[in-house]
Amino acid sequence: MSEHVVVIGAVALGPKAACRFKRLRQDAKVILIDRDDVFSYGGCGIPYFVSGDVSESSALRTTAFHMVRDEPFFKDIKGVDVLSSTEATKIDRDKKQVHITNLKTGEKSVLDYDKLVIGTGATPRKLNLPGEELENVYCVGNMHDAEKIKQGITEGKFNKAVVVGAGFIGLEMAEAFSDMWGIETTVVEIFNQILPRVVSPVIAKMGQNHMTEQGVAFKLGQTVTRIEGNGKVERVVTSDGTIEADLVIISAGVIPNDKLARECGLDCSERGGILVDETMRTSDPDIFSGGDCVVIKNAVDDSPFFLPMGSMANRQGRIIGSNLAGRNDKFPAAAGSFVVKLFEKSIAGTGFSLGSAKQAGFDAISVMLIMADRAHFYPVKDMMTLEMIVDKATRRVLGLQGFASSGDAMVGRINAVAGLMKFKPTVEDISNLEVAYSPPFASAMDVLNAIANMADNALAGLNHGHGPDTFAQYWADRECGDYCFLDVREHADAEPFLEKYPEHWHNIPQGEIPARFEELPKDKKIVLVCNTGGRSYEAQVMLDGLGFDQVLNTQGGMAVIKAWGVDI
Amino acid sequence: MSEHVVVIGAVALGPKAACRFKRLRQDAKVILIDRDDVFSYGGCGIPYFVSGDVSESSALRTTAFHMVRDEPFFKDIKGVDVLSSTEATKIDRDKKQVHITNLKTGEKSVLDYDKLVIGTGATPRKLNLPGEELENVYCVGNMHDAEKIKQGITEGKFNKAVVVGAGFIGLEMAEAFSDMWGIETTVVEIFNQILPRVVSPVIAKMGQNHMTEQGVAFKLGQTVTRIEGNGKVERVVTSDGTIEADLVIISAGVIPNDKLARECGLDCSERGGILVDETMRTSDPDIFSGGDCVVIKNAVDDSPFFLPMGSMANRQGRIIGSNLAGRNDKFPAAAGSFVVKLFEKSIAGTGFSLGSAKQAGFDAISVMLIMADRAHFYPVKDMMTLEMIVDKATRRVLGLQGFASSGDAMVGRINAVAGLMKFKPTVEDISNLEVAYSPPFASAMDVLNAIANMADNALAGLNHGHGPDTFAQYWADRECGDYCFLDVREHADAEPFLEKYPEHWHNIPQGEIPARFEELPKDKKIVLVCNTGGRSYEAQVMLDGLGFDQVLNTQGGMAVIKAWGVDI
Repeated sequence: MSEHVVVIGAVALGPKAACRFKRLRQDAKVILIDRDDVFSYGGCGIPYFVSGDVSESSALRTTAFHMVRDEPFFKDIKGVDVLSSTEATKIDRDKKQVHITNLKTGEKSVLDYDKLVIGTGATPRKLNLPGEELENVYCVGNMHDAEKIKQGITEGKFNKAVVVGAGFIGLEMAEAFSDMWGIETTVVEIFNQILPRVVSPVIAKMGQNHMTEQGVAFKLGQTVTRIEGNGKVERVVTSDGTIEADLVIISAGVIPNDKLARECGLDCSERGGILVDETMRTSDPDIFSGGDCVVIKNAVDDSPFFLPMGSMANRQGRIIGSNLAGRNDKFPAAAGSFVVKLFEKSIAGTGFSLGSAKQAGFDAISVMLIMADRAHFYPVKDMMTLEMIVDKATRRVLGLQGFASSGDAMVGRINAVAGLMKFKPTVEDISNLEVAYSPPFASAMDVLNAIANMADNALAGLNHGHGPDTFAQYWADRECGDYCFLDVREHADAEPFLEKYPEHWHNIPQGEIPARFEELPKDKKIVLVCNTGGRSYEAQVMLDGLGFDQVLNTQGGMAVIKAWGVDI
Repeated sequence: MSEHVVVIGAVALGPKAACRFKRLRQDAKVILIDRDDVFSYGGCGIPYFVSGDVSESSALRTTAFHMVRDEPFFKDIKGVDVLSSTEATKIDRDKKQVHITNLKTGEKSVLDYDKLVIGTGATPRKLNLPGEELENVYCVGNMHDAEKIKQGITEGKFNKAVVVGAGFIGLEMAEAFSDMWGIETTVVEIFNQILPRVVSPVIAKMGQNHMTEQGVAFKLGQTVTRIEGNGKVERVVTSDGTIEADLVIISAGVIPNDKLARECGLDCSERGGILVDETMRTSDPDIFSGGDCVVIKNAVDDSPFFLPMGSMANRQGRIIGSNLAGRNDKFPAAAGSFVVKLFEKSIAGTGFSLGSAKQAGFDAISVMLIMADRAHFYPVKDMMTLEMIVDKATRRVLGLQGFASSGDAMVGRINAVAGLMKFKPTVEDISNLEVAYSPPFASAMDVLNAIANMADNALAGLNHGHGPDTFAQYWADRECGDYCFLDVREHADAEPFLEKYPEHWHNIPQGEIPARFEELPKDKKIVLVCNTGGRSYEAQVMLDGLGFDQVLNTQGGMAVIKAWGVDI
């Protein structure tokens, strides 16, 4: 007898699971249902459709060979029946039935299943604000919203946009509005930084500075209290003031759609999300789940992890498809790797940021490096800033984040570490990480090796100092007399600062330190700077050896000071 | 008492070891000696100096902050004494002394050491050909050769170059001559493909085709028998004919300089190269070695591995520096990752090619995929071809190579797998590899996941077929009547081929197969093609299910057929 498989949800995980299973069991009957009439689309592409990079919304629904993934496509090409505009209202596990309602006709019916897949995804978090129902206030939850936003933009209806939430989608939407359409865009974020919990305040500020240069305004550390307007949105009121707006995007995260699963008694997390094992089975072995509605395992500390990403859904969907056919494939833990393009730059990372590592209970430190992304003598190159988070006790690498140009160089480095995270790598694993080498692509000692070497030196107490944020504090306090700012670059590089700050800026080129160290005060903190932190590290080691005990290296040097935005 | 460390060889490993050690032990005395008066340079940059990408040879010797790494630099900045133009002639391990000769004055002397580092590197392999001594026949072994070649080029002396050996350096030099200087360049290679042993003949042919389009000529499967000329080189004579040349580059690999080590009784490999343990110690615990003169361990099969790359030397140098200071750092095995830029394209890889895997005794297969390097709907993208080599018995991934545009996208993918090689990953590890996802950087199911899924399907017998080389054979034999070439793309894509080859080309779009499969012969091999191999794979699964038992999928489809160069 052929098997009946029902799949609830047809955006990313559902279609993947259905088609994979159908290839393995051609005699099986597979029904894919979705509430929407638009399904099987690349939701992560919405900001690029809104920006105009992707001209037609249908492009997000087509295969690489330009076929739209609609009902006939699934029927003819994949052998999968799709019931669109159909809501699953109840799962009856005893009878192995799904109750469904056709949302267009109101007709109710029941589908039998041998095996069931729940791929119900997630819903954008509403903030329950007064005025959230006003016209032109959108979440970016589906293609219909996306099309309305795009249509309004192309009709010239929007001039002032407010994006609530500085996470991935919020920043991508802000770029779309500002870059391609010249819409005056303000991002409001309740935390004091963009990408909170995802990257350190230092990396965040670099990204924010770049977006500010491109014309995006930021209101950080502000709560939106209400949205106002007369029918249509006219302004957003925050804890600190009012921002005019004719378009508002709420991008405050998503909530897993676990209601159906909860109601039929499947184990769910208290904080939301269906619990699944490594084979993507729920607490009912005949029901699988994956994608944005489940909780998986964090590769860094094995904790429960809600990671709503299209890439997770696709990989998990294939595993479900295989396991429906009797295999025993496993989805391992995930480290939460990401990359987000911000105009000409990007921020990417894997694992924990320093803040999230500490919150998870690690006694962690981080180091920051800026370095060319390939041989420094190669003519075409960019500077890459990386921050590595390491556990002091175990020397484990807990995370790596970075800020660089929007090319593929940084994301390639992040991916090299991302794949290792489930093996719980140590600093040594990255110090010796094998990166394919050739001057147009890497340095002989690649930036990844270099940041791990720096972490090694920091753990050994050999490299000690601070990032640009602490430097900024010291610099702001420069009149207090506690600090001696020492530039160890050659005189020509230091000269503009010596002229501008004759009282506070000092210069001894690194090579002259052995002859001139006696010029330095022993009763002050000596704050070392160079271009990128390499020479100042060596100078710091040298001064330590000469008996100075308050020497501080500014990691990343002037390059990071500038990107972070110290007023100097 | 302060320690005396002597380091023989000052190109890559030596300086790194010396400076790292000196930072950890500032009271130690470190002497770095080198035969040459030009040292501490990035030898891998020579092709880019010759091409003109790097305008001055000194750029290969300078730090990122433009200081030349000469004797005063090492003395003042690093605290390391350099004896240049000085040859180490003998190591006396009993007395812990190195005998040295100043090559400029002829003066001989002896240096005491507590610990010794041998970083003598490797020497370009000579072919002992008649005429190899003629003027304008070069190896690319050091900066002096590089400068002479560059000078000759800029003076317009060279119009016809022959490069002997189609390895990394040979191909990079061919690009330099042809691309930037318009020199008529021919590459002669004894094997039947470029990059022999490094990539499969299929990937090699794609790279060769691209270089041919850019104007480089290839003579493959030919042995150079002699070089002729009157004082200066005038022609190269091969097993198949004569090639005019006023410039010849011999790039036939390198031989480890292990003579000093051998003569003082250190354990060396029979095939050349000093044997070291994971701490980079030789058989004498007071003598370390690394870089191009040692044999390390292959991460794939733990076999001895000669891997002369600047990146290895730098990482190993740091480990030696640390261990000289009493640490116990270890250099793990290496997988032999590489990337080589060939005009607008590049070839990269890690681990074994199919040929080298078989030679090492694995029962291996490979699969080939071509796919967009980011979301297929994102406007800026390139196609990436990957070939994954897997062990049938263990499902281990033994290697991954690829051909793509010369950006950073492919090398990032290779690096993600390269770092995993020492963990001996299986197909599942790559199927689920976490790649940071966002449409401008990756597909939701990344090309890396996709190639592993394909390997999984091949191992399961679900995806069966061939690459473009086998397709080419079948196509050449098309008159024999054994094959039915079936294009499963939509009619419009197939039409030009139907018109050109009405006898041999057939078309049933994938979605019409269930209704039309009875048109297909059961007594012929059905050779399926589509654009990239995705639809043909699904069609093959479908036809298998319909009882056809001679269905063959053309992996990579028309895209790979075209890149490989089938005459169709």
